[in-house]
Amino acid sequence: MSHLDRAACAAQDDGDHLAFARDRFDLPAGIIYLDGNSLGALPKRTPTRIETVIRRQWGTDLITGWNKHGWVDLPRRLGARIADLIGAHADEVVVCDSTSINVFKLLSAALRLRPDRKVVLSDTGNFPTDLYMAQGLADLLGRGHRLELVSPADITARIAEDVAVVLLTEIDYRTGRRHDMAAINARARAAGALTLWDLAHSAGAMPVDLDGTGTDFAIGCGYKYLNGGPGAPAFLYVARRWLGETQQPLFGWFGHAAPFDFETAYQPRSGIDRFLVGTPPVLSMAALECGLETFAGVDLSQLRAKSLALGDLMIRLVAQECPGLGLTLASPIDAGRRGSQVSYAHASGYAVMQALIARGVIGDFRAPDLLRFGFTPLYTRYQDIWDAVAALKTVLEQGEWQRPEFSHRAAVT
Amino acid sequence: MSHLDRAACAAQDDGDHLAFARDRFDLPAGIIYLDGNSLGALPKRTPTRIETVIRRQWGTDLITGWNKHGWVDLPRRLGARIADLIGAHADEVVVCDSTSINVFKLLSAALRLRPDRKVVLSDTGNFPTDLYMAQGLADLLGRGHRLELVSPADITARIAEDVAVVLLTEIDYRTGRRHDMAAINARARAAGALTLWDLAHSAGAMPVDLDGTGTDFAIGCGYKYLNGGPGAPAFLYVARRWLGETQQPLFGWFGHAAPFDFETAYQPRSGIDRFLVGTPPVLSMAALECGLETFAGVDLSQLRAKSLALGDLMIRLVAQECPGLGLTLASPIDAGRRGSQVSYAHASGYAVMQALIARGVIGDFRAPDLLRFGFTPLYTRYQDIWDAVAALKTVLEQGEWQRPEFSHRAAVT
Repeated sequence: MSHLDRAACAAQDDGDHLAFARDRFDLPAGIIYLDGNSLGALPKRTPTRIETVIRRQWGTDLITGWNKHGWVDLPRRLGARIADLIGAHADEVVVCDSTSINVFKLLSAALRLRPDRKVVLSDTGNFPTDLYMAQGLADLLGRGHRLELVSPADITARIAEDVAVVLLTEIDYRTGRRHDMAAINARARAAGALTLWDLAHSAGAMPVDLDGTGTDFAIGCGYKYLNGGPGAPAFLYVARRWLGETQQPLFGWFGHAAPFDFETAYQPRSGIDRFLVGTPPVLSMAALECGLETFAGVDLSQLRAKSLALGDLMIRLVAQECPGLGLTLASPIDAGRRGSQVSYAHASGYAVMQALIARGVIGDFRAPDLLRFGFTPLYTRYQDIWDAVAALKTVLEQGEWQRPEFSHRAAVT
Repeated sequence: MSHLDRAACAAQDDGDHLAFARDRFDLPAGIIYLDGNSLGALPKRTPTRIETVIRRQWGTDLITGWNKHGWVDLPRRLGARIADLIGAHADEVVVCDSTSINVFKLLSAALRLRPDRKVVLSDTGNFPTDLYMAQGLADLLGRGHRLELVSPADITARIAEDVAVVLLTEIDYRTGRRHDMAAINARARAAGALTLWDLAHSAGAMPVDLDGTGTDFAIGCGYKYLNGGPGAPAFLYVARRWLGETQQPLFGWFGHAAPFDFETAYQPRSGIDRFLVGTPPVLSMAALECGLETFAGVDLSQLRAKSLALGDLMIRLVAQECPGLGLTLASPIDAGRRGSQVSYAHASGYAVMQALIARGVIGDFRAPDLLRFGFTPLYTRYQDIWDAVAALKTVLEQGEWQRPEFSHRAAVT
């Protein structure tokens, strides 16, 4: 393969059909941000929109804002936008609560549909909070449900008639390894098991086809590729075929058929609205709406193509620039089996990442030893990959990561 | 009793020791806002603070904001501020999720402590979402728990050895009737039952003494008297004596002992932190922090005294100005038994409130027939009460509420 230089990378930016989208973000000067899979960057529209919501809607119109400004419709309005990104109908998606709480709601609903099965099947690479919620629910129910973890490669083979729900994250948060959603859904369906997919690292990073692949349930995150801001609300998806008969246990007033009749007995709303619980967080929802607007006019197949090209470029450049520097590729080299990130193992991964951040290249660290680099095709450029690898090379060659200030673990890593 | 006029009401404002606090809010001109018990008004600091959080913290520092700006500490930092308002220690309160979800967490935790008892006792005036959450939990558990509702006056007599948890809202959202928290806690303790109090209409409206009255658990709302903005996060309280042994079922990663070790098995954090679930909503939390700052230097006994004086004034003025106009006082006339609101029944309550809002006096309507007027001592003035009653008199005397546009029920009422 020919040697690449920075100019060749920058030339790829010139041909980028998604280059227009970068201008939708307010990116800090001098920073290369490769952590949009942990916290998406700030959309340019967000500050003004939030100021309007605060000053004009809340400040001026006060309680009447719920009707006058459509606050009450935010969960469905945002859900409809997300539906377009994940291959769903607008009436299958709603924005609410956190991903963790949405796992609880949908896993409860799914277990209720499979009362004679006791196994929740997941893999050892799933994001921990999904596993914790399953453990908490099993413990609460006290009816012998158990969370069974196998390696990601063994999931399909393990799906059998004792499995109630297959609970998986499509893209492994550490390695970026992608599950074959269609194949797993087909296997689950054949075995009578239901599927609950976590799209935390999928939604907004690649096309997802929930309806087309026969997914039963899904949840996802608002603050990663959807650019909703720190701690943004999450979303959930319920396939139409389940909307009529599923019930989730968090009976809140916003899920009631007539919340402002203030009846004492719970009566669920029809459709996806019954998955709402408490009062929608309007400021956070408005910020997420701005995040979703950054996808206007974006072709998701182009998004996916760029995402994988960025990953391929990083793999190629690290191989070219950093041989013998202690990095081991931890992500699938085959682009089709990868999400929108590339990870490398390094024995001193935490300190290396801190040193890299000090150089203005922001990725993140995932225990025990992974440097994680996420690509957000809406704003990541090919030249950024060159610059990030160049910085990584310097950090490793010069041993910058060995400085004492880089070894102290912060609260959030 | 002597006849009161507007000048006499305004004179009371001149002697108001809390008058300084009104300047902490950005109140719309020409509006009299008596609905702070549904959505608190906008604190002046909020827009600038949120802009800073968005542009400088999120926009510039991106993922590093979690450590650099203490986002990760927000649930405890805000909890400590709320603790000061509700008679709790800082390590007993945390801000998270919605009131509904916090009811679920604490009710689950409480039922686990009383495994042989099946009754959750509440009253017919409790806010519906609390009742719904109890119904959802009982249904999920499937172990014969039942929610039993009695009239508010019958609560104390009904507390017996079969009651696991007494689940009450201190201030009735419709009538403002106040429960005797100390007496009910004492009766519950004697019967071996636990208490879970909803402070939605108490926190920030009057002193609460959770520790002193021996409360076991409590939850409350961030968007009413705490001025956190529409859909602000809620809080929860767990008495120190329960912090060691309680477990809530929503096992989320922010409640894990080591969330960034990414272990597959849940291990709860010590203390109140185990009641956290998902990632904290930073923008909403920052807005709530501004709301809590409006209480700086406020003496809660003065707050309570003013709140009751405002209510007494309203009752007196309605009696003086609106006799024979179809209003029936629905709140306790005895101030000590009342929260920070006064409600009136009217046969056409919904239309009357809409007509009143059209005149710039914002209260709200609660089914079936209640006009509800909330007093926020930090910004409500005595002269506002005069003006509100004068407008109410006009609406009723002139029959303004009979106009057709006032009879259409909006989505949120």
